[in-house]
Amino acid sequence: MSSNRTLGLAVAQMGAVNLADSREAVVGRLIEMLREAKSRGAEHVVFPELALTTFFPRYWIEDQEELDRFYEKTMPNPQVQPLFDEARKLEMSFYLGYAELTPEGRRFNTSILVNKAGNIAGKYRKIHLPGHSDHKLDAPFQHLEKKYFEVGDLGFRVFNLDETLFGMCLCNDRRWPETYRVLSLQSAEVVVLGYNTPSVNIHWNEPVHLRTSTHLISMQASAYQNAVWVAAAGKCGSEDGFHMIGSSVIVAPTGEIVARAITEEDEVIVTKADLQIGENFRQHVFNFAKHRSPEHYRLIVERVGAGEPLA
Amino acid sequence: MSSNRTLGLAVAQMGAVNLADSREAVVGRLIEMLREAKSRGAEHVVFPELALTTFFPRYWIEDQEELDRFYEKTMPNPQVQPLFDEARKLEMSFYLGYAELTPEGRRFNTSILVNKAGNIAGKYRKIHLPGHSDHKLDAPFQHLEKKYFEVGDLGFRVFNLDETLFGMCLCNDRRWPETYRVLSLQSAEVVVLGYNTPSVNIHWNEPVHLRTSTHLISMQASAYQNAVWVAAAGKCGSEDGFHMIGSSVIVAPTGEIVARAITEEDEVIVTKADLQIGENFRQHVFNFAKHRSPEHYRLIVERVGAGEPLA
Repeated sequence: MSSNRTLGLAVAQMGAVNLADSREAVVGRLIEMLREAKSRGAEHVVFPELALTTFFPRYWIEDQEELDRFYEKTMPNPQVQPLFDEARKLEMSFYLGYAELTPEGRRFNTSILVNKAGNIAGKYRKIHLPGHSDHKLDAPFQHLEKKYFEVGDLGFRVFNLDETLFGMCLCNDRRWPETYRVLSLQSAEVVVLGYNTPSVNIHWNEPVHLRTSTHLISMQASAYQNAVWVAAAGKCGSEDGFHMIGSSVIVAPTGEIVARAITEEDEVIVTKADLQIGENFRQHVFNFAKHRSPEHYRLIVERVGAGEPLA
Repeated sequence: MSSNRTLGLAVAQMGAVNLADSREAVVGRLIEMLREAKSRGAEHVVFPELALTTFFPRYWIEDQEELDRFYEKTMPNPQVQPLFDEARKLEMSFYLGYAELTPEGRRFNTSILVNKAGNIAGKYRKIHLPGHSDHKLDAPFQHLEKKYFEVGDLGFRVFNLDETLFGMCLCNDRRWPETYRVLSLQSAEVVVLGYNTPSVNIHWNEPVHLRTSTHLISMQASAYQNAVWVAAAGKCGSEDGFHMIGSSVIVAPTGEIVARAITEEDEVIVTKADLQIGENFRQHVFNFAKHRSPEHYRLIVERVGAGEPLA
């Protein structure tokens, strides 16, 4: 790869998608942001998790047909095709999150990378599914990702997208250091992700400011510790009365936030990402080959939950 | 363990220790800070890495006798015994970093935990040794940890110190997410560490503000992601003209800095650490048993350095 490599990198944050909003309307919003990103120098746009629908895991849904409406059975499908077409026309690549229903009836919280030629170059199925699978009658809303999705079966993978190495993850994955490490061990240069984060924690009375601060410090530290760019697109604002945090960001391998959305609506942020800046870290402080000691990390794969101190 | 558990937790940052300073003088400073910490409600004090001497890995030392002066051949030894005695008298436990020379002639960058009864309850030998082993003639100073120390052979361990579970690490370990994860998988409640971080990066022209910001975000994210308290004590200021960063901190499991040293001199910071606050995270967002997927983390132990994307 050449020595002076930059990437015009955009994050397209989305305001609320309500239950009544059609796929066509949503795809229209995505296309509008794609065009804005292009006009501001971007070559790649990151869209949110479950970008095509409301964040439906907040609802307990018993009717199978009603539930199925939130899933995509093919990709691209006729409703999403206009986004693929416009991106190919503009020579833009993108990341998109959506609910996937496979021909075998399996359900995943999925994201894809689409290259500038309009082809799907990579797929990810969310591994760290948060929330629960039971109906919490006393909660103000549900967080049913463990009911509506299986744990992803594709692993954390890195894809060469138009000569840049992209790693993918989704939402809650961004809080887990394992996510980024598995991607940087595959030489990822950019980690892209979408998210939907409710402003209220239904499990305990978490101070509201932590919802944003923990989102940010997790990505800042991981960008630095893995010498990668991190671009995170939220779907936010108030969906039918249920509020989610914004603060979509682009973080440099220095751990610094270089672009941040300041609304809770559709908003495009763009940076010119120097892909070489991570090299200073990869060659020195985080020269993995020189400094890592996997023989001392074995508990990370040998234990699932926390246990007793080693004897 | 009881349901309302708090720990009076102090960090004793140290200003410069120059080459001319005697062990006795240094131990006197540690004792003074131990007393101050006690008077301000602390039960445990964290002292820096290589607390008893200057940060000697900055010097290329060829004379073996001159080098050996920086190492402790026994612990406690007569020069350090007054610190052990005072801590036992005050019923304080502490963490202390020093250079260890074993009877077999092995050299480690070591830390110990000493309990309130004055007994060494745990030992750690630094795993992530930064720097180099060759003589860099063009550098303003050296960073010879890879020359003067072996990689630690004791792993990352958790010790029950007076009914609180402590994990230990040292300096550069704090930048590696594996460190904290291996400790939290052993149910660590508090991670204690000392550090010496030069203000200048000899490897590349790193902006000076990053030396502090990356130090802080690494510990903040890791405290949160592992639901542990992190207490970090720096040796800082200008040692014989070589400047090191300060900003010793105590970080809560929320990722928030609850105490921070603001000088580059001997300075004690104290907090009353609620050991239960991590439980909210351990039971929900970071319920490891429920949410982790080690089958997707295998690259963390299967690769040392970064490689090609998985096929």
